[in-house]
Amino acid sequence: MSSPVNSPAVITCKAAVAWAPGEPLVLEEVAVEPPKPMEIRIKVVCTSICRSDVTQWESKAQPDLFPRIFGHEASGIVESVGEGVTEFEVGDYVLTVFIGECGTCKHCVSGKSNMCQKLGLERKGLMHTDQKTRFSIKGKPVYHYCAVSSFSEYTVVHSNCAVKISSSASMDRICLLSCGVSAGLGAAWKVADISKGSTVVIFGLGTVGLSVAQGAKIRGASKIIGVDTNPEKYEKGKAFGITDFINPDECSEPIQQIVKKMTDGGADYSFECVGDTGIVSTALQSCCDGWGLTVTLGVPKVKPEVSAHYAVLLSGRTLKGSLFGGWRPKSDLPLLVDKYMNKEIEVDELVTHDMPFSRINEALNLMRERKCLRCVIHMSEQ
Amino acid sequence: MSSPVNSPAVITCKAAVAWAPGEPLVLEEVAVEPPKPMEIRIKVVCTSICRSDVTQWESKAQPDLFPRIFGHEASGIVESVGEGVTEFEVGDYVLTVFIGECGTCKHCVSGKSNMCQKLGLERKGLMHTDQKTRFSIKGKPVYHYCAVSSFSEYTVVHSNCAVKISSSASMDRICLLSCGVSAGLGAAWKVADISKGSTVVIFGLGTVGLSVAQGAKIRGASKIIGVDTNPEKYEKGKAFGITDFINPDECSEPIQQIVKKMTDGGADYSFECVGDTGIVSTALQSCCDGWGLTVTLGVPKVKPEVSAHYAVLLSGRTLKGSLFGGWRPKSDLPLLVDKYMNKEIEVDELVTHDMPFSRINEALNLMRERKCLRCVIHMSEQ
Repeated sequence: MSSPVNSPAVITCKAAVAWAPGEPLVLEEVAVEPPKPMEIRIKVVCTSICRSDVTQWESKAQPDLFPRIFGHEASGIVESVGEGVTEFEVGDYVLTVFIGECGTCKHCVSGKSNMCQKLGLERKGLMHTDQKTRFSIKGKPVYHYCAVSSFSEYTVVHSNCAVKISSSASMDRICLLSCGVSAGLGAAWKVADISKGSTVVIFGLGTVGLSVAQGAKIRGASKIIGVDTNPEKYEKGKAFGITDFINPDECSEPIQQIVKKMTDGGADYSFECVGDTGIVSTALQSCCDGWGLTVTLGVPKVKPEVSAHYAVLLSGRTLKGSLFGGWRPKSDLPLLVDKYMNKEIEVDELVTHDMPFSRINEALNLMRERKCLRCVIHMSEQ
Repeated sequence: MSSPVNSPAVITCKAAVAWAPGEPLVLEEVAVEPPKPMEIRIKVVCTSICRSDVTQWESKAQPDLFPRIFGHEASGIVESVGEGVTEFEVGDYVLTVFIGECGTCKHCVSGKSNMCQKLGLERKGLMHTDQKTRFSIKGKPVYHYCAVSSFSEYTVVHSNCAVKISSSASMDRICLLSCGVSAGLGAAWKVADISKGSTVVIFGLGTVGLSVAQGAKIRGASKIIGVDTNPEKYEKGKAFGITDFINPDECSEPIQQIVKKMTDGGADYSFECVGDTGIVSTALQSCCDGWGLTVTLGVPKVKPEVSAHYAVLLSGRTLKGSLFGGWRPKSDLPLLVDKYMNKEIEVDELVTHDMPFSRINEALNLMRERKCLRCVIHMSEQ
């Protein structure tokens, strides 16, 4: 049964292709296949750059997955739909999501997990359904990233890896909800479930950390301590709820001791948003005995082992991991979109740079050098 | 203001004294001071031996804390009370607890922590209140253990480190509620809050692990997998709810893979009851993505660092530590005592040996050699 609405063909468009780890992306003409059953092809409108795009681009762990198209925080418009897709129509405005929600697997039906067993985090650079790519250059496959690959004018995603949004949304800002902002808000609200009057410490004040701060502020936390080696983050942080700032480079005693003094024995909640497993231990020690909770959000750039002294746990602390803030992408993301549309959450202030697609390498370098929060790439501008 | 009821004097009695790490205890005549304000002196009736008594007795980490009197799982009768004690009277039957509950500190009033800031885990071998000992031999101080020191015919504890029990309780069995049994039940009920129909895996089937199993069984878990290198544990385990048994010595693939196959992707809950930090990582990997929870109960005998790959956390797992099963000793222990008295929980089957005080070294060796569950020492038998 083919779709009666459209019969899409291969599209040729521009994509920013990574040919090798860490090498500058090259704007290439790529062929984008039509969407297969239950997939949709999207004209990307805007894509923002997330730290994990840079981490994976630089990583030498999977050299076989190049050439590759990165990018996963994106807004776009449905260009065509594959067989069986009833949820989306051509022209719909969407956000991409890097983990899907099939709605039928054990995890999706549980209502308490976003680890969809069919459309979970994709690590092989392929589409979930047939383990193939939809991109190619002169017949040579180009690998996907997180089943999104938004550094391309057009991309194909599974229909369960996209969420419909209002056509009145600001496409160049709402894309941040695809990953970073939602991850931070979810860590604060869904994973930690921060309570009113509590104390919070956040390690790393990038987009994710500032979004945790915003989540804590909205919940009425009494003290929100930000820890970052960049002193400029304090000013920005205040707008997102940071009440106190610690610069580790200016401290002569361990951070956990400073936090303990500031919070009468340790914070109620701590968040690791740097992507440094070594900081997880500091975050755990910065929490209080009894009910202290540490949430890890960062994807580590180097050492993958998290470690902590057992006594830190024995005294009642909890260490909890989360991906995408624990949100179920299809079920929960619309609520965040509504909050943004109703001006209940701040997103725009996290965008420090807007750039045309042609300057994407500049944007990657800004992120690599920690000189931006979110840099939004406008695909139609050259 | 001295107590009008009694004016106790120094008692001389027999105690099993550890003179150096791992050296056999020596039954010595010790002087036991009268209880100071808010303390009580107890005639110990029975004390059972917990693995942590043996671990600390063997440990060379604190050589300065010898001579020392170990023991912390005990039942007894109040012999005298210090100034200001109104909760207890001479002749009351009590259980000792190794962490106290002052009722007034931040943690006690929170209602969500058993990490009392005044009477928390005591590590210096002294009484909390004045940092001194109540035991001596010819004037030389003898150190306490966990502020209980029940390997003595008489001991002094803070009144907030004891719980009144019915005089009809079996003193030689109920002492197990002082630590091991309560720790296991609390981990299952209070820390993990096991839900009906869930799957559970327990590493280590000693008294604590079997008590976790009992807790899981009472909650209606559908599968309770026990992991232990001692094949004899399976038969005993069945009575406590173990439905499936894994002997790591007989496995050719990693335990976590076997558990995943048995539980359709990973257990809902896993418990580390061995006291081996290396097993924590296996326990985490044996849990499912999304909502898997690992509870650590064991006190490690060697390497104190817990470590795990960050990806195990990122996919939504939680690692939670607990001491005494998260129970508040004064507030919650009476509920467990009631359950025992009402025959709602099994305790007696955990006692594998009864011995007179004179054979305490034999009892310690049985625990050291993993040849017992609980060995109960009857203090009045010689």
